[in-house]
Amino acid sequence: MPDRRVGIWLIGAFGGVGTTTAVGLAALAKGLTSTTGLVTELPAFLGADFDAPATFTVGGHDIRQTTFAAAARELHERSNVFSAPLLAAIETTLDTWSKNVRPGVIYHANAAIAAMADRKDVRAAASPAAAIEQIQSDLRAFQREHRLDQLVVVNVASTEPPFELTEIHHSLEKLKAALAKDAAELPTSSLYAYAAIDAEYPYVNLTPSRGATMPALEELAIQESVPTCGQDAKTGETLMKSVLAPLFARRNLRVLSWVGHNILGNRDGQVLTDPQNKASKVKSKDALVAELLGYKPQTIVSIEYVPSLDDWKTAWDHIHYEGFLGTKMTLQFTWQGCDSILAAPLVIDLARLALRAQRRGEKGNLPALACFFKSPIGVADHDFGRQFEMLEQYIASDERR
Amino acid sequence: MPDRRVGIWLIGAFGGVGTTTAVGLAALAKGLTSTTGLVTELPAFLGADFDAPATFTVGGHDIRQTTFAAAARELHERSNVFSAPLLAAIETTLDTWSKNVRPGVIYHANAAIAAMADRKDVRAAASPAAAIEQIQSDLRAFQREHRLDQLVVVNVASTEPPFELTEIHHSLEKLKAALAKDAAELPTSSLYAYAAIDAEYPYVNLTPSRGATMPALEELAIQESVPTCGQDAKTGETLMKSVLAPLFARRNLRVLSWVGHNILGNRDGQVLTDPQNKASKVKSKDALVAELLGYKPQTIVSIEYVPSLDDWKTAWDHIHYEGFLGTKMTLQFTWQGCDSILAAPLVIDLARLALRAQRRGEKGNLPALACFFKSPIGVADHDFGRQFEMLEQYIASDERR
Amino acid sequence: MPDRRVGIWLIGAFGGVGTTTAVGLAALAKGLTSTTGLVTELPAFLGADFDAPATFTVGGHDIRQTTFAAAARELHERSNVFSAPLLAAIETTLDTWSKNVRPGVIYHANAAIAAMADRKDVRAAASPAAAIEQIQSDLRAFQREHRLDQLVVVNVASTEPPFELTEIHHSLEKLKAALAKDAAELPTSSLYAYAAIDAEYPYVNLTPSRGATMPALEELAIQESVPTCGQDAKTGETLMKSVLAPLFARRNLRVLSWVGHNILGNRDGQVLTDPQNKASKVKSKDALVAELLGYKPQTIVSIEYVPSLDDWKTAWDHIHYEGFLGTKMTLQFTWQGCDSILAAPLVIDLARLALRAQRRGEKGNLPALACFFKSPIGVADHDFGRQFEMLEQYIASDERR
Amino acid sequence: MPDRRVGIWLIGAFGGVGTTTAVGLAALAKGLTSTTGLVTELPAFLGADFDAPATFTVGGHDIRQTTFAAAARELHERSNVFSAPLLAAIETTLDTWSKNVRPGVIYHANAAIAAMADRKDVRAAASPAAAIEQIQSDLRAFQREHRLDQLVVVNVASTEPPFELTEIHHSLEKLKAALAKDAAELPTSSLYAYAAIDAEYPYVNLTPSRGATMPALEELAIQESVPTCGQDAKTGETLMKSVLAPLFARRNLRVLSWVGHNILGNRDGQVLTDPQNKASKVKSKDALVAELLGYKPQTIVSIEYVPSLDDWKTAWDHIHYEGFLGTKMTLQFTWQGCDSILAAPLVIDLARLALRAQRRGEKGNLPALACFFKSPIGVADHDFGRQFEMLEQYIASDERR
Repeated sequence: MPDRRVGIWLIGAFGGVGTTTAVGLAALAKGLTSTTGLVTELPAFLGADFDAPATFTVGGHDIRQTTFAAAARELHERSNVFSAPLLAAIETTLDTWSKNVRPGVIYHANAAIAAMADRKDVRAAASPAAAIEQIQSDLRAFQREHRLDQLVVVNVASTEPPFELTEIHHSLEKLKAALAKDAAELPTSSLYAYAAIDAEYPYVNLTPSRGATMPALEELAIQESVPTCGQDAKTGETLMKSVLAPLFARRNLRVLSWVGHNILGNRDGQVLTDPQNKASKVKSKDALVAELLGYKPQTIVSIEYVPSLDDWKTAWDHIHYEGFLGTKMTLQFTWQGCDSILAAPLVIDLARLALRAQRRGEKGNLPALACFFKSPIGVADHDFGRQFEMLEQYIASDERR
Repeated sequence: MPDRRVGIWLIGAFGGVGTTTAVGLAALAKGLTSTTGLVTELPAFLGADFDAPATFTVGGHDIRQTTFAAAARELHERSNVFSAPLLAAIETTLDTWSKNVRPGVIYHANAAIAAMADRKDVRAAASPAAAIEQIQSDLRAFQREHRLDQLVVVNVASTEPPFELTEIHHSLEKLKAALAKDAAELPTSSLYAYAAIDAEYPYVNLTPSRGATMPALEELAIQESVPTCGQDAKTGETLMKSVLAPLFARRNLRVLSWVGHNILGNRDGQVLTDPQNKASKVKSKDALVAELLGYKPQTIVSIEYVPSLDDWKTAWDHIHYEGFLGTKMTLQFTWQGCDSILAAPLVIDLARLALRAQRRGEKGNLPALACFFKSPIGVADHDFGRQFEMLEQYIASDERR
Repeated sequence: MPDRRVGIWLIGAFGGVGTTTAVGLAALAKGLTSTTGLVTELPAFLGADFDAPATFTVGGHDIRQTTFAAAARELHERSNVFSAPLLAAIETTLDTWSKNVRPGVIYHANAAIAAMADRKDVRAAASPAAAIEQIQSDLRAFQREHRLDQLVVVNVASTEPPFELTEIHHSLEKLKAALAKDAAELPTSSLYAYAAIDAEYPYVNLTPSRGATMPALEELAIQESVPTCGQDAKTGETLMKSVLAPLFARRNLRVLSWVGHNILGNRDGQVLTDPQNKASKVKSKDALVAELLGYKPQTIVSIEYVPSLDDWKTAWDHIHYEGFLGTKMTLQFTWQGCDSILAAPLVIDLARLALRAQRRGEKGNLPALACFFKSPIGVADHDFGRQFEMLEQYIASDERR
Repeated sequence: MPDRRVGIWLIGAFGGVGTTTAVGLAALAKGLTSTTGLVTELPAFLGADFDAPATFTVGGHDIRQTTFAAAARELHERSNVFSAPLLAAIETTLDTWSKNVRPGVIYHANAAIAAMADRKDVRAAASPAAAIEQIQSDLRAFQREHRLDQLVVVNVASTEPPFELTEIHHSLEKLKAALAKDAAELPTSSLYAYAAIDAEYPYVNLTPSRGATMPALEELAIQESVPTCGQDAKTGETLMKSVLAPLFARRNLRVLSWVGHNILGNRDGQVLTDPQNKASKVKSKDALVAELLGYKPQTIVSIEYVPSLDDWKTAWDHIHYEGFLGTKMTLQFTWQGCDSILAAPLVIDLARLALRAQRRGEKGNLPALACFFKSPIGVADHDFGRQFEMLEQYIASDERR
C-alpha cells in the first residue's frame, strides 16, 4: 500500500510533545534516528499494517505564535535534547509542517491556558457549535490540501481542570439538542473531540483532559464508525506504579504508604501551578495503586513546577511496606526522564494504531490500547503486564483475520 | 484432612532464613502474626490444598551450636525484627524444634563455610556415600519420631562456590557407580539433595548452590517420584529486575547499562567475602537482564559485606537507558529489606507447594514455581508477571482435577 | 561539686522527644548506653563543667494521660527503638519520674493540640496570668520536693501555629500591664516561657513555637538574669542544608532549585496536618538556604504526615545546580532518621549548656548555641561549620576564666 | 598590569578536563559564559590579583591526535555539554591553541595509558633525562613564541598506577645523580613535574598521579623558587565526604559504615579499568573519612567504568550511622555531575593562584590551596569548611601586604 498518505493533527502542536512528535516523524522519515521508544516497532509487532513514518504529514492547532523549528531549537537549548545537526537536516520539513498549524479556536478557555495564548490570530468562537464548525473546517482543509487518505486527531494540549458531566453529556441526542440551542457546556478538549469524531476522524487523547470521555461522544464515535482512545499517557511514575504495585500484590507484601513527589519544569508544569488543572493530573496518577493492590494504602501524590528542570521531570517515590512477621521495609525510586521524549513516541504509536483500527472498521473506544494510558477508558485492570498482553493479542488476532 | 502431619527439614536450620521460618511457623500456628508475605495465602489460591501452619513440625541440620530461640533473639537484638513478646510466646515450641536439629554432616566442605562450624558434634563423613547415609538416617529418624505423613527438605544453608559438572553428574547410573567406588565429587548441597530425593522426600533449594540441579539427580527424582524445585530465591534486587526489565523491553526503551550494588551484613554476606562463594551469587543475579531484554547491555553486579547492616540489605540500581531520538535517561532504585524476613515466607510457600505436589503424584522439577527463583530450573522466561501467571494456572488446573 | 542536684522540666514530657530524653538520662545514669549523639560529650568539650546524667531529676507537664514507661514501650513497639531489656532495667526510675509530670495548663489552646489532650486533670486557666501562676507553682514545688540546686525548663511540645507579635510583646512593661488587665494574648508556649523565666529558671525552646522569642521576654530574661536559647532543633534535613548550601556557595556552583520533601509519622506529624501548625515548621526549614547562598533560588519544602513511619522520618532533597559553562547537575539525598532519637540528645546538651550558663552568670539569649537550631535567635549565620566553631570558642573561653 | 601575558600548559591537553579548560578560557575571554564554578571569582576574593581570562594563552602536551575543537565537539555530542553556537563562536581561538599542543614525551609509559596514544609523532625518550630535556624545550619554545610573562604547568592527564618512592626520591642530590647516570626510575607525571619546576614554571597536579609529590622535587621547587600544589582535585563524592564527615563528627553520631560506589564513562574511567591505575584513585578517595571522624569505620569505595555515561559520573553513597541509644540510621546521596565541567574551573582557579603565588615570591608547596584537593600535600585537615577558611585567610593576608 505504498500510495497511502496519512495525516496527524496535533491539538497543541507547538508544545513539547507536539514538537517532539514532528521532529521524530521527520527524523524517522529520513532514517536519521532509530526506532527506539516506539512500541509499534517492537519485533513482536513486525508485520502489522502500520503506516510508515514517511507517509505522515503533520498539521495541528496551537494558540502560541511559533514554529516547529523554533520550538525544537528552544527544547534543544533549554533541555539538551535533539542535536543541532539533526535539527538542521529536518528544518525544511518542519517549516512545511509549521504552515499546517492553524490558530487555536477558543471558547471559554481556562485562565491558566488562555494566559499562554500569544498568537494574535487565535479565534474566539461565539458558541460551542461555532467552535466545532471552525475546527472541522480546518481539519477538512488540511486533508483536502494534502490529499490524505486518512487523518488522525491527537490531543497533546495542556491539561484542563476537571470537568464534571451533567445530564446532557450522557446522551448524544441531548448533547446535540443543547448544542443547537447554544446551551451545551463542554470543555475545550471536548469541543475538539466532537469536531474530530463528527467529521469521522479517529481521536486520540494523550492528556487527562476530558476529550471524548463521555457517553454522548462515545455514542457519536460508534454512530460515525470512528475509533477513539485515551486517556493520559503513562510515561513515568505511573508506568512504574503499574509494574511495581502488582509485584507487591503478588508477593503478598502489604503496602502501608505510597508517597510520590513529581517535579517538572515545562509548560505543562506551569499550567499545573493552577490548582484546578493540577487536580486532574493528580487524580489520574493516584487512582491505580489501590486498584492494583486490592486495598487502599495511604497515598500522596504531588506535582510541583520547578522551572530549572525545563522539559525534564524527576519523580521520587517512597513505598513503605510490611513483610512477614510485621516487618516494615522500604523501596524508593527516582525516575529522571524528559517528558516530551517519553510521550512523543506514544503519539506516533497511538496514531498508527488508531489509523489501522479505522481501516479495519473498528469503532468507538479501543480498550486493547490500555497499556498506553494512566486512565484507560473502559479498562479497570491497571497491571501493565496484563495490559501489554491485551495489546499483543489484539494485534495478533487482527493479523489473523 | 485434619490428621495429616507434615515436617520441614531445614539444611542450615539456625541461619537467619531457617530461624525466621521456624519463628514464622510457630507464630502462624498460634495465630500470633498475619499471613502477610505468604504467596500461598493470596486470595487467588484460596481453596488449594496447602498444609496449615499448625500441622508442621520443624527439624534440620546445622553446623553451629545454638538454638532457634537464641538465634531468634540474636536477630531481634541485632536486626530489630520480631518482638520480645512474640518470641516469649513461642519459646516452648522453638525449644522443642531445636532438639530436632542434628549436627551437620561434612565431607570436604568449603573453607568459608567450614569456618562457621562451632558445633562440636559435627560429623565428618568418610565418603560421599557415608555422608548420604548419615543424612538419610537423620531424616528417617525425624519422620519416625514425629509420625510425619510427609517430610520436605529445604536447603537454606550458606552459598557454596560454583561447582562445574563432569560426566558422572550427567547420568544417574554413572553417579551411583562412582559413589559406590568412593569416586564421586559432589558439593555438600548435592549430597544433601541426593539423600533427600533418594529417601523419597521432596527437595527445595532456596540457594544458588548446586543442590539437585544436575541431570543425574533429576533422573533420580523422576525415578523416585519426588518433586523438586529451585534455585536461588528471588527476594529483592533480582525480583525488581524481573519486573523492570520487561517494562523497558515493552516500551522499546534501550537499556544501555544496568549497575546494581548490593550491601548486606548477615552471615550470608560474610560467606560471600570469599570470592568463590560470591561468584555463584553474582552469576545468578546477573543473567536475567539480558534474557528479559533480548540483548546484552553492560551490567555490573556487586555484593559487599557490610557488618553494620546485620540482616538488612540495601540494593542500589542505576539503570541508564536510551529513549526516543537518542535521549539518555535514568531510573534508580534502592531496595531496603531484611533478608530473612523476605526469604522465610517463601520457604513456607515452597514447602507447602512441594508437599502438595507430592500428594498429587508430581515428580521431578516443578517449573510452575519459577516465580520464586532467580535461576528457575528448566524455565527460560524470567518475566515475573508471566511466571506468576504460570503459578496461577498450575494451581487452578490442579484444583480442577 | 558532687552534691549538686539539677532538674529538667519537659513541657510535653510524654511526647517522643520528652520520653526519649527521660529514657536517655536514666540509661546514661546507670551506664547502660554510650554517649553517642551527645555533643557535650565530644572530646573537644572534655573538662567543661557539665552536669552528669546521674545528677538529673526529670519532671514536666503534659496533657496526655500516660507514663514515661508506657510511652517508651509504645515507641519501642511501633518505631523499633530502645530494647526491651534496657526498658526493664530503667523502669523504676521512669516510674518515679512519671509522678513528677503534672497535668498541662491550657489557656485558649490551638485545636490540633487540644485534640490530643486525654488527661482528665488538665487545668484550664481563667486568664494568662493565672496560667503563669499555676505553672510556676508546679515548677517551684518540683524544685522544693527534690531539693534541686537548679532547674531548666525545656519546650518539647508539639508545634503551634505561627503567632504574630503586636505592640505589647515588644516591651516588658506593656506586656506586664496587659497581663495584669487580663488583656495579653500569648501563645501557650510563651505562657510557659514567661513562667519559667519569671521564676528564674533557664528556658530552652526545641520547637518552632514562639516561646521566649519576643522582645518583652528577652527583657525579662535579662532582668531576671536567666539564660535562654532557641529555636527549633536542627536534626535532619535542615542540618544537611546547613552544611551543603555552604559547599555550593564556596565552589561558586549556582543552586537553581532546592526541593525538599519530608515524610514523618509521629504525633508531631499529626499536628502538622493542621495547615496553620505546619506553616511554622516550613518557614523555619525554608529560610536558611537563601541566607547561606547569598541569593534566593527556587525552594520548595513540604512536610507530610505518613502514619506508617511512626517516629521515623525520611527527607528527600533534590538540589539542581548550574556549574561551569552553564551545565546543570544534580545532588539528591535521602535522610532516614528517628525524630526522637535525633532530638533527645540535643535536649540533654542544651539543658547542660543552659544550667552551666546560669552558674556562670550569663543572662538572656545564648547565641553561641546557634549550631543546635534551625532559627537560632540573634544569629544570622546558618553555616553549621562556623556555628560549631562559635560553640567551641564559647566553651573554651569560658573554661579559661 | 594590562600588559601581562600568561600561559597555561596542560599535560593531557585534549582530555575532557583539558579541553573544557580551553573552552572555558576562550568563552570567558569573549564574555560568552558566566563565572559560575570559578572559586577565584567569588565576591570574597574580589580585588585579589588574579590574571583575567583574556590574558591566557593555552598550550600543552598530548599523545592523542585531535584538536580542542574536535574534542569539544565530541564532548558536546556524547555528553551534552557546551552548545553548538558557543563552540562556533570560539572555534578560531581553539584552533590557534590546538597548534600549541605538542606530541607527548613517553618514557616507559604504563600500558593502559600507552594504549590511548594514537598521535604518530609521540616521542619516545631514550632516558628520563632526555625526556625532561625534551619537555623543557617544548615549554620554553611556547613561552618564547607567545612572549609570555609567566607560564604555569598543569597535570590533567589520566591517572597512573601508584608509584612507591625509593631512597633516590628523598634527596634532590641523589635524584640528580641517578638521572645523570640514567639510573632514576620516575613515573611519567614526575618527569613532567621535574621538567616544569627545573625550568622555573609553577606546577599544579589535578590528578592522583605522583607528579611533584616527593622530597626531591619539593627540594627542587624551593631551590628554584617555584610554587607547586596538589593533588587530586576534589570535585564530587570526596567533596561531599569532606563536608558530611565533619557533620557526623560534630554531632557525635557514630559512622558504622560508609559505602561509596562511583560509575563514570569517560577516558579516565577507561584507564581505571586497569586495576593498578584504579588503586591510586581509590586510595585517594578512601583516606579522608577516617581522618575526619577520628576513628576508622568500615569503608568501601568502588569506581566502575560505564561507557554509556560518557563524561558524566554518578556517585551513590550509603552512610550507616548510630545515634543516641544505639539507634541505627542512614543517609544516602547521589551526586550526578559532569567530570570535566566540575574539574575545569578548578584548573583555571589553581593556575591563577599559582601564577599569583609566583609573583609574590612564594616557593614550594602551597598548603593554603588544600580545599581544592582530595590529598592536599602537607595538610592533614580534610574538613572542607576549615580548608576554605585557610584559603580566605591566605588571600586576605596576601592582599594586606
